[in-house]
Amino acid sequence: MGFTFQINHEVDFTHDSGMLSEADQSRPKLISQTVHANYVVTIGRAKKEGKHATPTQIQDISALAASSYGRSQSVILDFGQHYVGYFSVNISAVGSPMDAPLYLHIRFAEVADELAQKPEDYNGWLSRSWIQEEYVHLDELPATLSMPRRYSFRYVELTVIDSSPKWQAQFENPTVRAVSSADDARLPKLATADTELKQIYSVSVRTLHECMQTVFEDGPKRDRRLWLGDLHLAALADYATYNQTDLVRRCLFLFAGLAATDGRIPANIFTGKEPEADDTFLFDYSMFFVSTLSDYYKHTRDHETLDRLLPAAQTQIDLALQYVDEQGQLNLPDNWPVFIDWSDKFDKSSCAQLILIYTLKQFIGLLQECKQSTESYRNYVDILSQYVLVSRRDSKTGLITSGSKSEVNVATQAWTVLAGVLPRIDAAKLMRQTINQLFPVRGIATPYMYHFIVQALFEAGLRDEAIAEMKRYWGKMVELGADTFWEAFDPDDWFYSPYGNSIISSYCHVWSCTPAYLIHKYC
Amino acid sequence: MGFTFQINHEVDFTHDSGMLSEADQSRPKLISQTVHANYVVTIGRAKKEGKHATPTQIQDISALAASSYGRSQSVILDFGQHYVGYFSVNISAVGSPMDAPLYLHIRFAEVADELAQKPEDYNGWLSRSWIQEEYVHLDELPATLSMPRRYSFRYVELTVIDSSPKWQAQFENPTVRAVSSADDARLPKLATADTELKQIYSVSVRTLHECMQTVFEDGPKRDRRLWLGDLHLAALADYATYNQTDLVRRCLFLFAGLAATDGRIPANIFTGKEPEADDTFLFDYSMFFVSTLSDYYKHTRDHETLDRLLPAAQTQIDLALQYVDEQGQLNLPDNWPVFIDWSDKFDKSSCAQLILIYTLKQFIGLLQECKQSTESYRNYVDILSQYVLVSRRDSKTGLITSGSKSEVNVATQAWTVLAGVLPRIDAAKLMRQTINQLFPVRGIATPYMYHFIVQALFEAGLRDEAIAEMKRYWGKMVELGADTFWEAFDPDDWFYSPYGNSIISSYCHVWSCTPAYLIHKYC
Repeated sequence: MGFTFQINHEVDFTHDSGMLSEADQSRPKLISQTVHANYVVTIGRAKKEGKHATPTQIQDISALAASSYGRSQSVILDFGQHYVGYFSVNISAVGSPMDAPLYLHIRFAEVADELAQKPEDYNGWLSRSWIQEEYVHLDELPATLSMPRRYSFRYVELTVIDSSPKWQAQFENPTVRAVSSADDARLPKLATADTELKQIYSVSVRTLHECMQTVFEDGPKRDRRLWLGDLHLAALADYATYNQTDLVRRCLFLFAGLAATDGRIPANIFTGKEPEADDTFLFDYSMFFVSTLSDYYKHTRDHETLDRLLPAAQTQIDLALQYVDEQGQLNLPDNWPVFIDWSDKFDKSSCAQLILIYTLKQFIGLLQECKQSTESYRNYVDILSQYVLVSRRDSKTGLITSGSKSEVNVATQAWTVLAGVLPRIDAAKLMRQTINQLFPVRGIATPYMYHFIVQALFEAGLRDEAIAEMKRYWGKMVELGADTFWEAFDPDDWFYSPYGNSIISSYCHVWSCTPAYLIHKYC
Repeated sequence: MGFTFQINHEVDFTHDSGMLSEADQSRPKLISQTVHANYVVTIGRAKKEGKHATPTQIQDISALAASSYGRSQSVILDFGQHYVGYFSVNISAVGSPMDAPLYLHIRFAEVADELAQKPEDYNGWLSRSWIQEEYVHLDELPATLSMPRRYSFRYVELTVIDSSPKWQAQFENPTVRAVSSADDARLPKLATADTELKQIYSVSVRTLHECMQTVFEDGPKRDRRLWLGDLHLAALADYATYNQTDLVRRCLFLFAGLAATDGRIPANIFTGKEPEADDTFLFDYSMFFVSTLSDYYKHTRDHETLDRLLPAAQTQIDLALQYVDEQGQLNLPDNWPVFIDWSDKFDKSSCAQLILIYTLKQFIGLLQECKQSTESYRNYVDILSQYVLVSRRDSKTGLITSGSKSEVNVATQAWTVLAGVLPRIDAAKLMRQTINQLFPVRGIATPYMYHFIVQALFEAGLRDEAIAEMKRYWGKMVELGADTFWEAFDPDDWFYSPYGNSIISSYCHVWSCTPAYLIHKYC
């Protein structure tokens, strides 16, 4: 995920070598697999009637070496599935001796539609350096072109910018050395017989697989780093599938080792040669450190890790509680904004309040595991919940409101259920009212927020409605040909991107893989 | 140099391992020198009034690290002199942690004007892969960017296509590891006191220096290979300056080792990992194998090399003589065209005839050195010369004509003098008449052909006129700021390029370095 840019140069970060060394010990080995391209395809060049461009003419890969390519000619390879890895291809010159370098443009795309858009038209606010394209000169052929950078793709477009009138380029054996730390041998068998759910599950697992590198990367195309909100959900999906809990442990230690000197855990970490905290803070993400630790402990019973990380969790809670007033209302400062979802079209203050309750309860559970006193925190749960139920409940509909204009939105209702401020029977009522009044969901375009909505439906006991919503949202992506689930998807606007241009969107995003967890847990 | 593309797939080439192994034995070691950029400069973006763009604002290189560069910002470095080599620069990120790759566009330019033109506007007929530009992504900073390809440049433009709003790129220590096989310690002192000639000489020597790699490359920017016409002149310049005769020997053996199976020596050779003949044949270039061998022998008295290479020289002559008819006229077949100059605006048939006479005489000289019979060849000199003097002399002006329309052009007069078909006194008359009638030279735009015109003036005894012409032509390039002499230059059209676009032109071309020889020999 991302957010409106925060620039906080003045913030200093700790580098707790003990924590970082624990993270290092849990660093996974990457598993490599060599995969050959399957097809040569043609992709339409323009958006038509608001629809994604998809492969049209499809030929066997043998068509590749049967052709040669001169100035401005191109070919698109289809690897048949999404891969994260290192591309190589053999290139030779056909015709007279090679009297000029070969100048190639290479594009990598997770979905066919990326190739229908022109990189030079990009005008979004994220760096255009994320567009997966390279320009390469080869001075001598034959040669094997082995790209040193890692890409995330199913399709590769090779365009000969120029050879010379005397010879053309010929391509053979396009290959990806795919990498992931996920071990498919560990996958359990899925019990459900529902074909649609099976498909959704399978695409979820592939999404998780691709994002499992040396951390849970948010997206292997972009941003290729560890976000806490994403980790929270990725870990749940991992427990339900690969169950490689060491990777979660590693990520927890990375966050704890790179907290700001005021104790706040940053929203994300760059995990290059040396892990480094981003100077970005999101309230809900900091809180989800507690959730991730709680989920991890519940799943693994790894008490040693809990002992090591409990203080960091406590710090997040204590820092947050500073901003709770006497009425039990959370009032966040500007330097700790809440994310909730990419959309800025709804008020998020009640969600922040509810997430604090949600994580506070998880924290109390952890304190109990460590035989520590919980009383003062319990009081906070009470006054925070009381505020919601007394001051934020619409007397007519029973829905929870948010902000000074008492706005009613889907996200708030979902978090009300997840925070457990209502008895289950009231939660069911709330979600039924939500469905009546606020469905179909509008203005939310991330699988991340959809996850919490669907989970709230399940938790409220509305299993059929939850499954229907899951099929409506993730199922639509499958119907549109998704090999992995997309960072952002608006069923009403297929080209929606939080970044002003969908060429930069990540089409394999770990926060989108939670149906694997939801189906495993609730179906 | 280049030529309208010839494609001769059907021609087979010998790979004489004995010859090629001799070439290998004379392979020079490259001398490396590390050079740091001197200045940060600004260059105007557009042609103005037909003038080249030149550096305007000039700052010390310390200005580089004092700035940082974000999306679409660029900086131009000036190394103060022309270099051939490997560029590197240290790059760091300034600001927040690096949250996206750095995407850089790097351009290398021999002259400032190249940077005023846009690569995307290139529409010439040579491969655009020759434009010296690269696009590079750097995933982690700080890093030292070391470009693996060799470039030919004085200026380097670094453009940040994108960093991110959170950080900018900072550049430090731009360096070139310059390479050449020319050893400056071997340079003799120039005797002349003429400042202008001194400058011309010095730029000539630098041109030769840059082109002296593992062969005499025609241009280290483009084509980076060994052309025979260029070798003929480069060798003469070498004898007058560096006197690294082994490099000439190497090039002669390369050509002899890669003749076509019919014996013709190709116009050029690719000298990558494995030397390879181009399937291009130019009559005059094949003939200049004889000239280059003759000049080499005269300068070195290396009789062993002469013995080994004489048969290849003889083959060129014998093949050419097949096309001489009973009237003593040379009639070339289509598959062995004559080059003479890039211009196609004048008839070249008499030049071809005269070059055959010129090389035939040199060949006879070589036969004499080897104590071989020369009689049949002498007869050919006679009938070929007779044809020129009887059938090709304009009775009014005394000038030599060319082609069916009896055209009179400068190139023919120059080659008439060089071929020695006239006594010296008549040669002087001819060149005076040429000056009167055909000067200033028009429609010839290569220093290659200008060389022969100036040499003809010297040979005809018109020393002042020769020096004036040299100053008018090469001196003009110096006046325009040339660090090395250009492949093509038309004093009447500064943007002339044989390729339809001057961005692709080579601004350091070995065939342009002959003033070093002319000044040494005649001044």
